[in-house]
Amino acid sequence: MSTQYVYFFGGGKADGHRDMKDTLGGKGAGLAEMTNAGLPVPPGFTISTQACNLYQERGGSLTPEIEEQIAAALAKLESLMGKKLGDAHDPLLVSVRSGAKFSMPGMMDTILNLGLNDASVEGLKAKTGNGRFAKDSYRRFIQMFGNVVLGIDKDHFEHELTAVKKKAKAATDVELTEAHLDEVIARYKKVVKAQTHHDFPQDPRAQLAGARNAVFESWMNPRAITYRKLNDIPHDLGTAVNVQCMVFGNMGDDCATGVGFTRNPSTGAPEFYGEFLQNAQGEDVVAGIRTPHPIADLEKVMPEAYRKLREITTRLEHHYKDIQDFEFTIQENELFMLQTRNGKRTGLAAVHIAVDLVEEGILTKEEALLKVEPQALDQLLHPIFEPKARAKAAVAAKGLPASPGAATGAVVFTADEAVAWAAKGKKVLLVRMETVPDDIHGMNVAQGILTATGGMTSHAAVVGRQMGKPSVVGCGALQIDAKARTLKVAGKVVKEGEAISIDGATGDVMLQALPTSPSEVLQVVSGQLKPAKSAIYQKFEKLLGWADETRRLGIRANADIPRDAKVAYAFGARGIGLCRTEHMFFESERMPHVVKMILAASRGQRGLDLIARLKARLADAKGAQAAALRKELAAVQKEYKQPIADYTGALKKLLPMQRADFAGLFKEMKGTPVTIRTLDPPLHEFLPKREELMVQLATLRALGEKKNARKIADLQKRLHAVEELHEFNPMLGHRGCRLGITYPEITRMQARAIFEAAVAVAKKGTPVKPEVMIPLVGHVEELKRQKAIVIEEAEAVLAKAKGVPVEYLVGTMIEVPRGALTADEVAKEAQFFSFGTNDLTQTGFGLSRDDAGKFLLYYQEHGILEKDPFVSLDASGVGQLVEMGVTKGRAAKPGLKIGVCGEHGGDPSSIQFFHKVGLDYVSCSPYRVPIARLAAAQAQLAQRASD
Amino acid sequence: MSTQYVYFFGGGKADGHRDMKDTLGGKGAGLAEMTNAGLPVPPGFTISTQACNLYQERGGSLTPEIEEQIAAALAKLESLMGKKLGDAHDPLLVSVRSGAKFSMPGMMDTILNLGLNDASVEGLKAKTGNGRFAKDSYRRFIQMFGNVVLGIDKDHFEHELTAVKKKAKAATDVELTEAHLDEVIARYKKVVKAQTHHDFPQDPRAQLAGARNAVFESWMNPRAITYRKLNDIPHDLGTAVNVQCMVFGNMGDDCATGVGFTRNPSTGAPEFYGEFLQNAQGEDVVAGIRTPHPIADLEKVMPEAYRKLREITTRLEHHYKDIQDFEFTIQENELFMLQTRNGKRTGLAAVHIAVDLVEEGILTKEEALLKVEPQALDQLLHPIFEPKARAKAAVAAKGLPASPGAATGAVVFTADEAVAWAAKGKKVLLVRMETVPDDIHGMNVAQGILTATGGMTSHAAVVGRQMGKPSVVGCGALQIDAKARTLKVAGKVVKEGEAISIDGATGDVMLQALPTSPSEVLQVVSGQLKPAKSAIYQKFEKLLGWADETRRLGIRANADIPRDAKVAYAFGARGIGLCRTEHMFFESERMPHVVKMILAASRGQRGLDLIARLKARLADAKGAQAAALRKELAAVQKEYKQPIADYTGALKKLLPMQRADFAGLFKEMKGTPVTIRTLDPPLHEFLPKREELMVQLATLRALGEKKNARKIADLQKRLHAVEELHEFNPMLGHRGCRLGITYPEITRMQARAIFEAAVAVAKKGTPVKPEVMIPLVGHVEELKRQKAIVIEEAEAVLAKAKGVPVEYLVGTMIEVPRGALTADEVAKEAQFFSFGTNDLTQTGFGLSRDDAGKFLLYYQEHGILEKDPFVSLDASGVGQLVEMGVTKGRAAKPGLKIGVCGEHGGDPSSIQFFHKVGLDYVSCSPYRVPIARLAAAQAQLAQRASD
Repeated sequence: MSTQYVYFFGGGKADGHRDMKDTLGGKGAGLAEMTNAGLPVPPGFTISTQACNLYQERGGSLTPEIEEQIAAALAKLESLMGKKLGDAHDPLLVSVRSGAKFSMPGMMDTILNLGLNDASVEGLKAKTGNGRFAKDSYRRFIQMFGNVVLGIDKDHFEHELTAVKKKAKAATDVELTEAHLDEVIARYKKVVKAQTHHDFPQDPRAQLAGARNAVFESWMNPRAITYRKLNDIPHDLGTAVNVQCMVFGNMGDDCATGVGFTRNPSTGAPEFYGEFLQNAQGEDVVAGIRTPHPIADLEKVMPEAYRKLREITTRLEHHYKDIQDFEFTIQENELFMLQTRNGKRTGLAAVHIAVDLVEEGILTKEEALLKVEPQALDQLLHPIFEPKARAKAAVAAKGLPASPGAATGAVVFTADEAVAWAAKGKKVLLVRMETVPDDIHGMNVAQGILTATGGMTSHAAVVGRQMGKPSVVGCGALQIDAKARTLKVAGKVVKEGEAISIDGATGDVMLQALPTSPSEVLQVVSGQLKPAKSAIYQKFEKLLGWADETRRLGIRANADIPRDAKVAYAFGARGIGLCRTEHMFFESERMPHVVKMILAASRGQRGLDLIARLKARLADAKGAQAAALRKELAAVQKEYKQPIADYTGALKKLLPMQRADFAGLFKEMKGTPVTIRTLDPPLHEFLPKREELMVQLATLRALGEKKNARKIADLQKRLHAVEELHEFNPMLGHRGCRLGITYPEITRMQARAIFEAAVAVAKKGTPVKPEVMIPLVGHVEELKRQKAIVIEEAEAVLAKAKGVPVEYLVGTMIEVPRGALTADEVAKEAQFFSFGTNDLTQTGFGLSRDDAGKFLLYYQEHGILEKDPFVSLDASGVGQLVEMGVTKGRAAKPGLKIGVCGEHGGDPSSIQFFHKVGLDYVSCSPYRVPIARLAAAQAQLAQRASD
Repeated sequence: MSTQYVYFFGGGKADGHRDMKDTLGGKGAGLAEMTNAGLPVPPGFTISTQACNLYQERGGSLTPEIEEQIAAALAKLESLMGKKLGDAHDPLLVSVRSGAKFSMPGMMDTILNLGLNDASVEGLKAKTGNGRFAKDSYRRFIQMFGNVVLGIDKDHFEHELTAVKKKAKAATDVELTEAHLDEVIARYKKVVKAQTHHDFPQDPRAQLAGARNAVFESWMNPRAITYRKLNDIPHDLGTAVNVQCMVFGNMGDDCATGVGFTRNPSTGAPEFYGEFLQNAQGEDVVAGIRTPHPIADLEKVMPEAYRKLREITTRLEHHYKDIQDFEFTIQENELFMLQTRNGKRTGLAAVHIAVDLVEEGILTKEEALLKVEPQALDQLLHPIFEPKARAKAAVAAKGLPASPGAATGAVVFTADEAVAWAAKGKKVLLVRMETVPDDIHGMNVAQGILTATGGMTSHAAVVGRQMGKPSVVGCGALQIDAKARTLKVAGKVVKEGEAISIDGATGDVMLQALPTSPSEVLQVVSGQLKPAKSAIYQKFEKLLGWADETRRLGIRANADIPRDAKVAYAFGARGIGLCRTEHMFFESERMPHVVKMILAASRGQRGLDLIARLKARLADAKGAQAAALRKELAAVQKEYKQPIADYTGALKKLLPMQRADFAGLFKEMKGTPVTIRTLDPPLHEFLPKREELMVQLATLRALGEKKNARKIADLQKRLHAVEELHEFNPMLGHRGCRLGITYPEITRMQARAIFEAAVAVAKKGTPVKPEVMIPLVGHVEELKRQKAIVIEEAEAVLAKAKGVPVEYLVGTMIEVPRGALTADEVAKEAQFFSFGTNDLTQTGFGLSRDDAGKFLLYYQEHGILEKDPFVSLDASGVGQLVEMGVTKGRAAKPGLKIGVCGEHGGDPSSIQFFHKVGLDYVSCSPYRVPIARLAAAQAQLAQRASD
């Protein structure tokens, strides 16, 4: 039996099938599959990759055997279509395309309308009744064939076309008439003759052989060879050639062409959706010259074709188990499907469709969970722009996408203005160089926040995410003149009150108002809308309910204040994975105490330490030695009296405030675990900026040293205090547990506040599960010492509150490499681990997130890094530290509870990784909780699939 | 046969031996060993640990069998010494000491003079002719015994002693006469009676039983138990009891006591060294009441004892193979050795002695190498203070020990003053807030450098080490008033010109001139002294020669300029492991070009990139598209003309300068490898400080916006440029290869300079081995791209220089955790690795070296960290990253050349680690090269010993 080199498809069946990519290439296998699925794709045949290899081996020719198989396939095609290649009345036209196993740049792509010649072009004209169309098709075919197959420089053709257009005084191609095109064809044929010393081939079989050979030749062109070398693709794979018959929707009123979706891709509603044009080409639908009709009207004009289209697309939806986006052509009442693929859809539609498909019995719950991109849920949680308006709007600048959502509003430049304008019912957008804790009231009323400096962890970014407020930060192109109340960007000036829009998911800034749609889900969650009133909320809940049944990972939220905790709980978080206690310090009524504490901390703590040490020595000492010690003690007590009073006094003031904060969190979280991190940021973050003080001081000095002597002295004192706390690299400085170790009274105060709050809430009947987390531990001794303080306070408080049940844990963040490297040692002291992947990424890469802007984007654009490692965990590098932490931690303490509370906790691909390495939970910002729930379910399903 | 519980030692032999620590405890085994070695130690006996266990089992008593063995041993002791316990004329006195296998806090330590009672104290008085001494010994015995054995609170005794002193109007104990002491004894006995209801035991055998039991009891006291629990020492180990006869050097003129060394511990000279007092106690020698005689004089007064002492100490030196520091007592013409141990010595002496001992046949070369602490060599390389003067000088403040050595000089506050004073022949010490590159000329002439701010990698520290100039940095206690030319510290004011001293090895600052001794070795190395003229240099060279024969690790130096390279080569470095090219940028005549380059870099590079991209597209384009591209290209060329000219122009100016630098290095290093790192620091380090510009601007503004409009505009422009480069965490910012990637022209210029220099030097006959090192690589793609540029330039230069032989390598620094974690991938592109352990420590711990001062010292003082991880590599944490880098790197590329060029490269304990993990070489600052050579040899010997 002879080898099969040519595989036919059409008339309801194909010689090949989808698993024959090696022989048929990707495209050929796909065409075979669609044909076998009963899809009316235009028929044709595939010449196999083996033929290509033979062609190369034979130095540029095929065996007679193959030529015969091709001829037979062509004859079959002609017979099936009832047309003949090159026929002067009703010609068969074909396309010729390459199709390797992998798609590959440098390969010949497509030749259309093959089969046209001086005779058949007249047949096409007659059949379509469109001479201009027929001639334009012919001149394009000559140009394409001339360039690709005959190797003639494009310039030659361009030159002739330009000349005819000039003569015809036509500005564009479409202004050329049939007569003009006849002249173009004549000139093109001359070009071919001049360049190849042969006439343009009129024999369609010669055209086909030439095109086919061109595909095979392109397999060995230098770009394709280089590409294969770079990507380790073997050279003997070969490419297939697909010859497929062309169909036309413009051959008369029994023809049409159109596009559609099986469901509404914007809303997900189960409606047949699309448009068509009768007696038209596909291009006409897209080009917008004629207005297409709604697809429902097709039923009236071509009921049979419409019925078949409905039947086929419904079948396709069942086959692909997803909404289909299809293109079709009806040629002489016969329906051909040109393309079908899973339809792109909005997040809203994705949820709607996935749930509907389950209810329609098309998908299982598990399959439905895999149909929705977790990230797409974001659209249900934040306002979104009206898509068409958004697409048209010019992007004036790009910042960092700090907090997703669409925001439009009048520009204001201060928090106070924001509040004033908002009070008058205006929607405002707060634009600042960078925000500070003092701006909170303005951020709260703004639609969105836009800053010129700062990174993804800047104040604006963190608070924006926390509030679920669209934010774009670090938009360096903005030139803000707060005095003049103007904003310069992209050569334009925006004044206060003028509207702009920001897209917090992309970082885009647009200098116009854009319509936004509100989020029903958010309205339900915030209590403004009854769940029963929102169909989409119900579907959303249903889908996430399935996710909850499926996932293994627990989901917690990062929340610092009761309001955020409430949102997180409503979104399905069952626990807080990170409460940053310092955010409570920033509240304005607390700042005076915080500042007082900080300024006194160094000497205050030193005094306390000295006194404690002297008292301990005194306890052992006798006689003269004791007397001397007593004297020394009195002196120290006197010397440090004021700083100790300031330090401990301020801590005492802060204690009840923190206690109230924690009590609020415990209440909102209804007995689920609440992880509270002890103070983390360097203390100077709470003080005025060093350079600001320096500038003030310089100004006062220049204005008169004597006149301003008192003010100068005061400023100098403050500057001195700030200087003492100044750090070159605050990220690597005196922060985290290093603070708690050198200033144990701060940890002590926080621990006391936590347990007093826990007791108070537990007494009222709400169970509490505090988990105290020590940040930035690199050495087990750090944890050991901080843990001792926490336990001391906890036991003291609990002893006093006899019998009130408070289970608590003390654990640590693993967020510097050394913590992960020595996780076995650290685990001995830890009751849980939580990975701080933000800092772990910063230290693992040696890369400050706030400073990386200058090169991280460059790195991504130039392919050095695939993804921003602060968005998606760098599994191959930083991920090793996480795995190491888990493995070593659990080796030392089997079953150790481990979570993650970095930004990555809400990133789907990172969640997949965290699932795989066996974490117990992920914690993310409240507005990402739904995303995390779905992603965790998908991770579980992916694991099941690979098991 | 009955079990032996009591082991006698004395009279030239012992029952036990040194391997019986389980039975005799550490001390008992040592006494047995010394006795067996023929050492005349005071005789005695050891009661075994088994007896202790029996004592515990029996609830506090010994078996009659053991009691009999003790009695027999005591009888033997009395007979050997010719004295009897409790004898009223010539009493035998003993000490009782505990002695477990491991020394342990909480255990009873020592009871002296046991055997004294009302009768025997008179015998002691008679024999010593010193009633005061006898009575004082007795009252001390009662007090010690009362407290330790009878459990009486010390306070009771203190109280009585104070009362007698008050009565006698004696300020100190020594003012008490024999009569006073008689009263103290009487009162003490009353205390014992009152507290125990028994008289103080007069029976010496009862005293002995009591003391012995007290030792056994102390084995089970809570502190000892806790200690054993914490240290995993089994409780059934038990403790032994050592009973040893006391000897007295004050029993007449046939008695003496003294201390000595077998060689001079200061210089190492082979001379018998020490002092003694006739008819005196050991205390008298130490207390300085009587002036002791040189030990040589002993030969005259007690020739036989002297002869024996010489003979014994010589034997001891052979036995312990080291200089001995001994204490002896001669009692009635009989010599007793009380203690002998290896003598402490200066670095100078250590080298001298080690070499001498080899030449005397006492040590092998390998043993000699282990006798010298590598760190001690530092003393041979830097001036040192005269030890006695140094010990007496008050330390006014402490900074970071940035560069070792002793420096004394007149304080100056500016580099210019330093030069001016030095020109007049004054020795100056440069004191600055912090130094900047502009200060180099002043640093060069100063004896030492002292700064108030900055860490161990600050400019002053790095340059100080580089120059071998004693430096103390970051001395926060200094208040420098540069205007008033004063320095406030520790409440004192130092004016310009007043002398202070700094110790660069400890960080101590002393407010006085101190005598220093010069370093002969340094004089030889710098060519001021002929090697033949310096005996110590010859010994130093000999020792290091042996080290070179032994070590496996290669030793290179970190050197940036030819002068440093020359010193490094002279000290034995065979290669440069790190040349920081940026240090060349800081030279003052280069700074204008550097600044120009930096200010233009961003737009200049962007222009070049755009032009390159357009040209590439143009090469493919035709017709109208080509025309449009040509137009665009012209526009871009015009727009970026100036920045490109500034950027590339400055680079062109810098090229020949760098080329000359590199040529100098290649010449000095005589064909050994020279590793050159491409530009590393963030560019803003080369620009004025942001806050300084802000202050200048504020001042000008306050003085009149209009008047200063031009200056303000100019400053604003500069500030804007600086702001653009500002970073929150420069350590984690736009530096290292990130610079070279975003500004490839800089790497290109440096590579060209390296290879042009290499060719120039090679042409003149000096072989060259450049190794180009790409810093801060965290991802293999970074290295790949930078390497491509280097190779491109190298090949271009070498192609032009046909046939000139230049072997080169391109490799990378592993200095961020991700580099180590993915070392297998990085190794595929690297021809060598060099660990940058400074940055690896910073990122591994998440700890900025410059900011760690606030807590790192606290951490060490409080035992959280044992050692400063920037001085000694943190083997258990950061060391894992190094091991990982080696293992993964060599797994991917077997035999990969790997070194280290962080500060740890010169730290002996780190070198041991680097040896163990299999590095090929270490690289350190030139002045640490000898230390590294020795440490590397010791590491090799340690490995041999453990193999």
